[in-house]
Amino acid sequence: MTSPIITLLTDFGSQDPYVGVMKGVILGLHPAARIVDLTHEVGAQNIRGANFALRGSYSHFPAGTIHVVVVDPGVGSQRRILAVKSEGQVFLAPDNGVLTGVALRGEVREITNRAWFKAGPISRTFHGRDIFAPVAARLARGEPFEELGNAVGDPQLLEQPEPVRRADGVLLGKIIHVDSFGNLITNIRESLLASIASRVASVEMNSYLLEPPKDSYASVKQGQPLTIVDSFDFLEIAVRGGSAARHFNASVGDEVRVRFA
Amino acid sequence: MTSPIITLLTDFGSQDPYVGVMKGVILGLHPAARIVDLTHEVGAQNIRGANFALRGSYSHFPAGTIHVVVVDPGVGSQRRILAVKSEGQVFLAPDNGVLTGVALRGEVREITNRAWFKAGPISRTFHGRDIFAPVAARLARGEPFEELGNAVGDPQLLEQPEPVRRADGVLLGKIIHVDSFGNLITNIRESLLASIASRVASVEMNSYLLEPPKDSYASVKQGQPLTIVDSFDFLEIAVRGGSAARHFNASVGDEVRVRFA
Amino acid sequence: MTSPIITLLTDFGSQDPYVGVMKGVILGLHPAARIVDLTHEVGAQNIRGANFALRGSYSHFPAGTIHVVVVDPGVGSQRRILAVKSEGQVFLAPDNGVLTGVALRGEVREITNRAWFKAGPISRTFHGRDIFAPVAARLARGEPFEELGNAVGDPQLLEQPEPVRRADGVLLGKIIHVDSFGNLITNIRESLLASIASRVASVEMNSYLLEPPKDSYASVKQGQPLTIVDSFDFLEIAVRGGSAARHFNASVGDEVRVRFA
Repeated sequence: MTSPIITLLTDFGSQDPYVGVMKGVILGLHPAARIVDLTHEVGAQNIRGANFALRGSYSHFPAGTIHVVVVDPGVGSQRRILAVKSEGQVFLAPDNGVLTGVALRGEVREITNRAWFKAGPISRTFHGRDIFAPVAARLARGEPFEELGNAVGDPQLLEQPEPVRRADGVLLGKIIHVDSFGNLITNIRESLLASIASRVASVEMNSYLLEPPKDSYASVKQGQPLTIVDSFDFLEIAVRGGSAARHFNASVGDEVRVRFA
Repeated sequence: MTSPIITLLTDFGSQDPYVGVMKGVILGLHPAARIVDLTHEVGAQNIRGANFALRGSYSHFPAGTIHVVVVDPGVGSQRRILAVKSEGQVFLAPDNGVLTGVALRGEVREITNRAWFKAGPISRTFHGRDIFAPVAARLARGEPFEELGNAVGDPQLLEQPEPVRRADGVLLGKIIHVDSFGNLITNIRESLLASIASRVASVEMNSYLLEPPKDSYASVKQGQPLTIVDSFDFLEIAVRGGSAARHFNASVGDEVRVRFA
Repeated sequence: MTSPIITLLTDFGSQDPYVGVMKGVILGLHPAARIVDLTHEVGAQNIRGANFALRGSYSHFPAGTIHVVVVDPGVGSQRRILAVKSEGQVFLAPDNGVLTGVALRGEVREITNRAWFKAGPISRTFHGRDIFAPVAARLARGEPFEELGNAVGDPQLLEQPEPVRRADGVLLGKIIHVDSFGNLITNIRESLLASIASRVASVEMNSYLLEPPKDSYASVKQGQPLTIVDSFDFLEIAVRGGSAARHFNASVGDEVRVRFA
């Protein structure tokens, strides 16, 4: 039987060997571990960015996967570390809201069992190495989840901006992520658009007016803007073969308005 | 028996979890998969860059390796997806020329077998996740290549600039790649230089005059420019301990002239 | 039995497929190899940066791990390549000081056994692919260390700046690393501070005065500077939720002064 996958999602970047060190600790405790990097470039202390990356990723991993999220501005403080069993997977993360919308409906425990951590003193600045990595390795080799610590009923949650419908019928959403292609991802889901009886007439952002969602980037000419439903089911503003973020000088938080026919 | 290696070469960058998601899909279908990243930083929609990276890489992998190339500006359009069996390896890529010079002399099929894709709806923007990853996983676990789809006789090709010899004997080449050290890689192969009866007298780029190829970077002083044959057999212009791209303010497309004695 | 881990630490960056190619060579010779990236972003030819990364990493890997360091400005010259057995691990690196403080107290050999290298001609610019990768693979599959080449008694060493104590009792150290969070890591170890009978009164850098080390980043307000002992036991200057490098306009080599009560 193969070992569960352990995914790593941090803000450590790629310049320093911090992620490699976590892998060394995991493989030292559990030589058969299979480790996958989600991303380590969400930006320093960017809890919302990590949350967005995790929400788009976890469901594509097989049952039993252990997701380790170390975006942890409160490292060394009294903030709790959580372990969550949810939808057949396990999530380890600081209690700072980074699991919002992912896993907080499951069985939530606080990780306090010192016997699972690195032996000896625990660093105040690198819990990824001294707590998260050994805990993930022990879970992957089959040690019981229940021994991690007590149940937690009040995990921290991020406030997630949800689209709102104005009295005049216009749907107001926001840019919540800019990906590395410069695509602008909104918080407006296709399912929400589908639930509205009228069809989309236009999409507006800043002073720009865009057509209803296209079927593919290639539906418009090179360099032309478009809207499309992205692979995570969000309405996206893109530029074919270019960067919508640059084209529209747009960024996270900008308002997007959808008008209906 | 170990599973074939699956390599991934994309323009997804490292900021978003797109590559990690592809790995989750692969490992979900084929837990024993061994996955190697070639690079994900060729630049958005840079088909030539991906082609260059692949040409320098694939032959260093063992027989049976499956190379997955997702640099795909036409995603969601009617562009075909190809699977190629060539030189004992397998290549999966959009039909946009990215396999030029690598694999198009082999057995080429169009990937159309819906049963191999993700179950349910297929995203219009992320075929890496919904088509390439599951197809690679199924090939790696031994499902038959022939079932992917029909043979293709007319794959797209990139025009590759080849060096030309002028009437006065001067060989005209081009910079085709700048690596992360700032080395300028030309399209002039050592084998071509060796095939010319006279020995190299000088190498010129822009208004600069350089000596014939040296044996090592260390043949010149720190900060000095040189020419050398690189590890992929191309004539390269470099600066010892520095960046030739900066030193010469040079970039892809610049002309290089080789004079013979 | 699982194969030893092979770690890779280079200055190759992530734009080119050089690291992927090394993995292809390793897996071709030793299909069961387990490979972990330490970092490939230390900066071109940055021997000190690679040395710092390695010193903070290696001890977190299990016995038998093979660490491959390819930061090699002298590639192709007469510089030696070393293999070192030390503290139960193996280190492969050019003889340029990159192993200083790590492994040079162990059994040191020069790698000269041509039979272990790539068959055929050896590139003058990419020994990572043609020498380091095959040697690492062969060691990982159990071929004897002693066959690599003769013992070496005089490996190159980096001069490491050590903190000095002035006549007036002030301890003078230096910034030796800036991590991707902008944390400023000094060459002053906690053990050195602990060995001084008086307690720390203040830490100074440039014209800034800082308080003695805190227990966690969260001990100060968001955006405020602090000193702390980092996870590798060095005194660090940080800004909570920010970049100390930007806040103080500081960089590697800047002087740090510790005053005692």
